[in-house]
Amino acid sequence: MKLLDEDRLLPTEERPRRLARALYEQVRDLPIISPHGHTDPRWYAEDAAFPDPAQLIVTPDHYVFRMLVSQGISMTDLGVPRADGGPVETDGRKIWKLFAQNYHLFRGTPSRLWLDHSFQEVFGIDRRLNAETADWYYDHIADCLSKPEYRPRALFKRFNIEAIATTEAATDDLRWHKMIRDSGWDGRVVTAYRPDNVVDPEMAGFAENIMLMGEQTGFDTATWGGYLDAHRARRAFFKEYGATSSDHGHASARTENLPQDEAAALFQKALRGACTPAEADAFRGQMLTEMARMSIEDGLVLQIHPGSRRNHSGEVMAKFGRDKGFDIPGRTDYVTALKPMLDAVGMRPDLTVILFTLDETSYSRELAPLAGAYPSLRIGPAWWFYDSPEGMRRYREAVTETAGFYNTVGFNDDTRAFCSIPARHDVARRVDCAYLANLVASGSLAEDEAGELAHDLAYGLAKSAYRL
Amino acid sequence: MKLLDEDRLLPTEERPRRLARALYEQVRDLPIISPHGHTDPRWYAEDAAFPDPAQLIVTPDHYVFRMLVSQGISMTDLGVPRADGGPVETDGRKIWKLFAQNYHLFRGTPSRLWLDHSFQEVFGIDRRLNAETADWYYDHIADCLSKPEYRPRALFKRFNIEAIATTEAATDDLRWHKMIRDSGWDGRVVTAYRPDNVVDPEMAGFAENIMLMGEQTGFDTATWGGYLDAHRARRAFFKEYGATSSDHGHASARTENLPQDEAAALFQKALRGACTPAEADAFRGQMLTEMARMSIEDGLVLQIHPGSRRNHSGEVMAKFGRDKGFDIPGRTDYVTALKPMLDAVGMRPDLTVILFTLDETSYSRELAPLAGAYPSLRIGPAWWFYDSPEGMRRYREAVTETAGFYNTVGFNDDTRAFCSIPARHDVARRVDCAYLANLVASGSLAEDEAGELAHDLAYGLAKSAYRL
Amino acid sequence: MKLLDEDRLLPTEERPRRLARALYEQVRDLPIISPHGHTDPRWYAEDAAFPDPAQLIVTPDHYVFRMLVSQGISMTDLGVPRADGGPVETDGRKIWKLFAQNYHLFRGTPSRLWLDHSFQEVFGIDRRLNAETADWYYDHIADCLSKPEYRPRALFKRFNIEAIATTEAATDDLRWHKMIRDSGWDGRVVTAYRPDNVVDPEMAGFAENIMLMGEQTGFDTATWGGYLDAHRARRAFFKEYGATSSDHGHASARTENLPQDEAAALFQKALRGACTPAEADAFRGQMLTEMARMSIEDGLVLQIHPGSRRNHSGEVMAKFGRDKGFDIPGRTDYVTALKPMLDAVGMRPDLTVILFTLDETSYSRELAPLAGAYPSLRIGPAWWFYDSPEGMRRYREAVTETAGFYNTVGFNDDTRAFCSIPARHDVARRVDCAYLANLVASGSLAEDEAGELAHDLAYGLAKSAYRL
Repeated sequence: MKLLDEDRLLPTEERPRRLARALYEQVRDLPIISPHGHTDPRWYAEDAAFPDPAQLIVTPDHYVFRMLVSQGISMTDLGVPRADGGPVETDGRKIWKLFAQNYHLFRGTPSRLWLDHSFQEVFGIDRRLNAETADWYYDHIADCLSKPEYRPRALFKRFNIEAIATTEAATDDLRWHKMIRDSGWDGRVVTAYRPDNVVDPEMAGFAENIMLMGEQTGFDTATWGGYLDAHRARRAFFKEYGATSSDHGHASARTENLPQDEAAALFQKALRGACTPAEADAFRGQMLTEMARMSIEDGLVLQIHPGSRRNHSGEVMAKFGRDKGFDIPGRTDYVTALKPMLDAVGMRPDLTVILFTLDETSYSRELAPLAGAYPSLRIGPAWWFYDSPEGMRRYREAVTETAGFYNTVGFNDDTRAFCSIPARHDVARRVDCAYLANLVASGSLAEDEAGELAHDLAYGLAKSAYRL
Repeated sequence: MKLLDEDRLLPTEERPRRLARALYEQVRDLPIISPHGHTDPRWYAEDAAFPDPAQLIVTPDHYVFRMLVSQGISMTDLGVPRADGGPVETDGRKIWKLFAQNYHLFRGTPSRLWLDHSFQEVFGIDRRLNAETADWYYDHIADCLSKPEYRPRALFKRFNIEAIATTEAATDDLRWHKMIRDSGWDGRVVTAYRPDNVVDPEMAGFAENIMLMGEQTGFDTATWGGYLDAHRARRAFFKEYGATSSDHGHASARTENLPQDEAAALFQKALRGACTPAEADAFRGQMLTEMARMSIEDGLVLQIHPGSRRNHSGEVMAKFGRDKGFDIPGRTDYVTALKPMLDAVGMRPDLTVILFTLDETSYSRELAPLAGAYPSLRIGPAWWFYDSPEGMRRYREAVTETAGFYNTVGFNDDTRAFCSIPARHDVARRVDCAYLANLVASGSLAEDEAGELAHDLAYGLAKSAYRL
Repeated sequence: MKLLDEDRLLPTEERPRRLARALYEQVRDLPIISPHGHTDPRWYAEDAAFPDPAQLIVTPDHYVFRMLVSQGISMTDLGVPRADGGPVETDGRKIWKLFAQNYHLFRGTPSRLWLDHSFQEVFGIDRRLNAETADWYYDHIADCLSKPEYRPRALFKRFNIEAIATTEAATDDLRWHKMIRDSGWDGRVVTAYRPDNVVDPEMAGFAENIMLMGEQTGFDTATWGGYLDAHRARRAFFKEYGATSSDHGHASARTENLPQDEAAALFQKALRGACTPAEADAFRGQMLTEMARMSIEDGLVLQIHPGSRRNHSGEVMAKFGRDKGFDIPGRTDYVTALKPMLDAVGMRPDLTVILFTLDETSYSRELAPLAGAYPSLRIGPAWWFYDSPEGMRRYREAVTETAGFYNTVGFNDDTRAFCSIPARHDVARRVDCAYLANLVASGSLAEDEAGELAHDLAYGLAKSAYRL
């Protein structure tokens, strides 16, 4: 028995399916460009064996455990570490069984597609996960993980990853990236510059982080000018480790373009911890425009990921901390929010700003009209909750007619779950080929054009947009 | 001639249609669970014959008459009662003819599906309604209604209703429910606790209703504590008549979790009629959290139905009163609005809160992420304007990938139109089977899983979510 | 080689395609009713040859040049005139080549469909546009344009246009419409009353325009009463030139229904240039209600087109002026915004107000419920960024179930691009026939009803809604 249908996610009608299959055959084995993600660089640096199946697949992946939690299973029973270091389940087999017994909850979700893909393609499994097969699964995967061919670098090669970006805080020492480089291994793992902890006055440790940036760079970060220079220096340092992009996860897409003396005064207030929430928001907005200006100088691609109301549950945040599946999207405005930055630098063809969204209503109403006009703007792929077959289909249908294909940037997996990387890219390639095949079948696109586009969407656009 | 296509609403492609038909065959005859609706308990209590066809099908159903009104037909010509008791059309045949002449207006709407289903399946009609057949229709339906097998209880059995909930105000004496119980009839008709008239300071009669609650329960409802106790007592009274849920139709989803002394002070202000609109809104929000706490105590399922701007037309409200098809949806936020309640009780697995929406943009952006994380939350079905084939399809496509199937609760018909109940459940079963069949056909779900899900969506989930 | 697939945009499945093709065959050759657009009446008046291919197809069409600009091509290289009259590219062949080299950018967009339709059906071209064919294309089209059968009036007849509306400012002298009428030509070109420049206090020249209106009409437009009378007179003047509608492109759908003395005071403030932004907005809102009242008097259909944030790029506005592809949609509320006008006149069956939107979320949430209840309201077609196959499909799917077909008004091309008119109507007819065919195939509509509807959507509804 196969866990996966060979033609999954392709159109179900005969002619479009045939067209889609032909397109997919051309792109299924292309190398993976993964320009935005959250895998741990330490994996590639140390190349140690992954721990047990539950620690690999269940406990660290908030896509997986939040669904179990949503049906009343406790995080402690799933081994999710507590903020206070208190006891949680550590028996991998027990966690795995709980997961297996509830595997039906994932029916119809992309997690199910990714998991089954990992099970079949990475671990060679041919039976469905459930209460009965839980132990067999656990033993089988544990056995695999003990073998050298399941070490991170071996999987990296087997997954055919041409380049992968991790994401590090602006003050990170990039030690794992250094270790990778020093090791002489030829896998291309690059970093990305994520300065949230030094541009958001409301983040714990803001002032301390900025002082650290001063020490790291030799600039006087107690001054606005020195602070900006320190950013420049850190960006250059990140570029040494392959960075081609910066990444900004603010709650909104707000930008500002204040006179420099006002920006400097706001910075001083932020350093003193004296900003009102509105001023903190203005400062974050100002920094997006400053980052865009630096991008014109140094060529880093600017990624803006707004819209998540982080750590929505006060109880979960207090007990388990950040990134526990309780980041909930909200309405996000781009048109008013981005205007200050766009008026400053939006018409520059030498700048690339990639916009992501968790508010699908913005695709056709805001993002496609903006990216279909401003030369600096591109639209990021269907992301996070929309990294899914329907999410991707709606994305293409909403975006293409106004912005075309060439104002999009290919696929990002954005994942912490290493084994899901090939699965996620495979889903994206299938869904894009299905979309293109339907355009051909309905007489809206020629077959030769669809072939070119399939290649661009699977590989070329990510590579060129991210300058990888 | 058949009014209904045997395979209506199933996929049109051959293989998915075959799959969908097989799924549908398994669920088409399952009993109906109708856990949320507005049929009149008096019907089941008295079991009197329904009045004439127009009084049964046109005049009381705002889905039907608002469409006629939207094309310039006056409410008085349709027999809709005036608020001032002034004259309106009373000749059922004249009203019916007006309806029949304009039956083309319903093309493409779910009302058309429901009406044709009633005509064919309930009344055995085999010709299309139009100006020519109007009289024949009127005579035929009137003739049926005079027969015992068209009395409410007989239809209840014929419709294969296992359980139906009506909705009563908190201060209702539940006389009809008592009469049903006393009659010894075995049809399961339960009530639901709808306290809008005692939790909304802006409702006419708010203070009087609260005094009445005091009389009904023996608690001193002039105090905050006595008021809450009176709610507890009324909820217990409703539970005696089968209630398993409460129902809350506020304009927004706002919740609050004020300190009890502040809540008590706000209650006093509300009782005095001294609340500002903002304070009234805060009080309603506080009461949702109080109701959630009581739900943990007594097990009632909490239903939140926000988003309708009720009685939008001042003119219609003045001339004809409430519920005349002029309740218009608006944008509705859940993420910020529900946070106070969720911080208080959202992680409780022994609480069930069912969220409905009239703002489809919230499905994938807010409701699915929330219900896909919080154990207390479930997503209600596509509702009201979205109780329709496309509405249901969009619902499944937007919700499933993030929240799965098991954070949804099956179908609610929410109707005042008795004869439309089997039609509405049939539409939901068909659309869900079509959705599942398409997942199978595209390799995203196994056939055995689809079979289990079809049963759960048609029957099991409504029963378990509503504890019926 | 054909540029166009004979069955483009029809369903790809065999049975629905056959049904759709049969419907389309019935409507493909119906005359074009174009009740809302921006073609230049001077064309029909003077009937001069169109200039070179770039001046006809690239430079004046912001749908076309904004896509090129979005990928880094400069407006000056595309010959877009500068606001300061400075030098831009004037060599049509060079502009055309730049367009041809980048023609792949339009893949998947409606512009591509319209352009290929013009190339094949208007100019008889049988090869694809690209860098290699650029010169051939240029020469071929230039050659056509020199022939009498490519003059505006000849194309008007060839396009089978039964009636077309242009749009003129309230103070326009309608000289070209007069010239058309005086010429005795029988083509039906009517105007539409667009009073933005005399109802928006924030428009440059507001007071001067109102003084001009006074001169044109003989009313004392320095008074509120005289100003309203001047509107009445101008509307009557526009009606002499065939106008059946007025058109209002405010940023929001806000309406007001102020007491007349307050409105008069606000008008005085507006005339003095003393309105705050909030007061200016209130004045615009008041004028929508005044226009609706005048519509009841004189029968003009009122069109409301809100939602565009005009001239979003400060840089583009400064260098190139208005209407350069940088009008970006934003969220638009109708439910609260329209209530004052609807409370005043919304229940009038002798008033027709057509609502357009650039915010698709309003289709099912607001516009369909409103138009499905108020007799005065109709929903305009999928418009601007949604004048596209997917946009039209989403429109029908979102609107029909609540508002039916008869609260919609057929198709508007809204275009400045003359040669795209038949293409746009053809796309709309195909997409509507596809939608109807899918309803028939899924058992939701009878074939005879679909046939009637296909005719109504392609021709009848536009004619009756716009009283043409």
